[in-house]
Amino acid sequence: MDKGILDFRCALERAVDLGLVDQGSQLPGSLLEVIQDSGSALATCRRLHDLASAGRLNGCLASEGAALVAPIPKPHKNVFCVGRNYAEHIAEGDRAQNQNVGVTEYPVFFTKPPTSIVPPDGDTLIFPSVSESIDYEVELAVVIGKPGRNIPKAEAMDHVFGYTIVNDISARDIQRRHGGQYFKGKGMDGSCPVGPCIVTDDEIEDPHNLSIGLSVNGETRQDGTTSQMIFDIPTLIASLSEGMTLEPGDIIATGTPSGVGYAMEPPRFLKDGDLIICSISGIGELRNTVRAI
Amino acid sequence: MDKGILDFRCALERAVDLGLVDQGSQLPGSLLEVIQDSGSALATCRRLHDLASAGRLNGCLASEGAALVAPIPKPHKNVFCVGRNYAEHIAEGDRAQNQNVGVTEYPVFFTKPPTSIVPPDGDTLIFPSVSESIDYEVELAVVIGKPGRNIPKAEAMDHVFGYTIVNDISARDIQRRHGGQYFKGKGMDGSCPVGPCIVTDDEIEDPHNLSIGLSVNGETRQDGTTSQMIFDIPTLIASLSEGMTLEPGDIIATGTPSGVGYAMEPPRFLKDGDLIICSISGIGELRNTVRAI
Repeated sequence: MDKGILDFRCALERAVDLGLVDQGSQLPGSLLEVIQDSGSALATCRRLHDLASAGRLNGCLASEGAALVAPIPKPHKNVFCVGRNYAEHIAEGDRAQNQNVGVTEYPVFFTKPPTSIVPPDGDTLIFPSVSESIDYEVELAVVIGKPGRNIPKAEAMDHVFGYTIVNDISARDIQRRHGGQYFKGKGMDGSCPVGPCIVTDDEIEDPHNLSIGLSVNGETRQDGTTSQMIFDIPTLIASLSEGMTLEPGDIIATGTPSGVGYAMEPPRFLKDGDLIICSISGIGELRNTVRAI
Repeated sequence: MDKGILDFRCALERAVDLGLVDQGSQLPGSLLEVIQDSGSALATCRRLHDLASAGRLNGCLASEGAALVAPIPKPHKNVFCVGRNYAEHIAEGDRAQNQNVGVTEYPVFFTKPPTSIVPPDGDTLIFPSVSESIDYEVELAVVIGKPGRNIPKAEAMDHVFGYTIVNDISARDIQRRHGGQYFKGKGMDGSCPVGPCIVTDDEIEDPHNLSIGLSVNGETRQDGTTSQMIFDIPTLIASLSEGMTLEPGDIIATGTPSGVGYAMEPPRFLKDGDLIICSISGIGELRNTVRAI
């Protein structure tokens, strides 16, 4: 590996070395700890960011050739995901599968394990011996900041720390063959690129009015807006937290718009070397290259 | 809370205090660390166990009124679960739901989050405002000891650290209403009692020949044998690890035999105060009381 890994702890420790932060400061060891903290760690990070913007941390924060790790490289539980949350995506899926399921009455939840996480610029893995029907799905992901169970819709947004992008890479054949439960086909190694960063909620004026798109090798495949979500973020948080505690650092991917590969005629699946770029306005671009192993 | 919590670290630290283990020994901080260790920590634990059996650790290991924590109180990812893995259970479910799904060609996998874990003797929660159809499922659970991806069936058992019992508490109405994905109905707080211990694989001669049962308030509800599994443990490990890395400490619940409450005529669901006892030969009993909140 010829690139350094730029992680959060490195940046903070370097800041201490440089005397930019008091030795005695309570420094978080990871972005997850910042999210789990009640606020002072985030203030420290903002100060470091200001210093970095002024060029005073360049030696660390923008090391030549460094690669970003995922914002939360090892989540403390599976990533929560939502299926069938954009009408045109539901329609294209029903058409491709010759079925008429339509919009479900309740949100469709499933999970992806921590082993599936891929950093920005990292490789999205495909396993030709396991599946030749691997597909992409760009999604707005919510990061929980405040714990809660049975969270009312009206209070749901108070529980959001910020937003990021998830590419819900899916092996379509495997997703369907295990008795219809999505987990196995959605849970493979390298199937959950996350990033490029977590944008705090105060920076996003309206998470339900963001453009959301995906390209493969420069060709636009998905091009929608988060206003098209069937179940909005408060509804998803309220439903998911019914009888189930959400915790700081939890990631909830909120579903994908239309344009997935398996619903094209003929279907087009990912292949070795493809460059996938997911983009959401206000968050940025998540770029990953497909690597067959 | 009038009972102490007897956890693993407490037992080991007490052993150090008593001079039974060298101060310089590499002591694991949790059972999860023992599983993740390559073997020396397990040897230390066996020595402590021998001392305890001889009565020399009683002051800590058998504190009056102490309660056990779950063997892995906070797993590092969701618990893997298997649905529809015993023929009579599939038949009773199809009958109760007026359907004819039968045996699936591939194992049915889903997950339960770490927030669902309940210790031995702990309370299994039910939420009457969320579901009134909460049911039990006793399951043999495999704990992974050696990491691997694309594990061949013939090598699968080498990846097993040991076995425990999981009660896969399920909200039947919720399990079905979210577009058919089990996760939400299987993932509620307090829905995953685990324990009473992890039995290492060398202590279980044949995991496919264990009696497995469950009672509610002393009435036998489930009474089977793990020989009835449709997909055996090597098949489950091979299938689950296709393209997906299994890690030390991963828990895989392998499905439940017949006798669940929703398939009885009329259906019988769990209610506040019910005492559920799961038992598997060679492992022991997992006892939990239902508490409505």
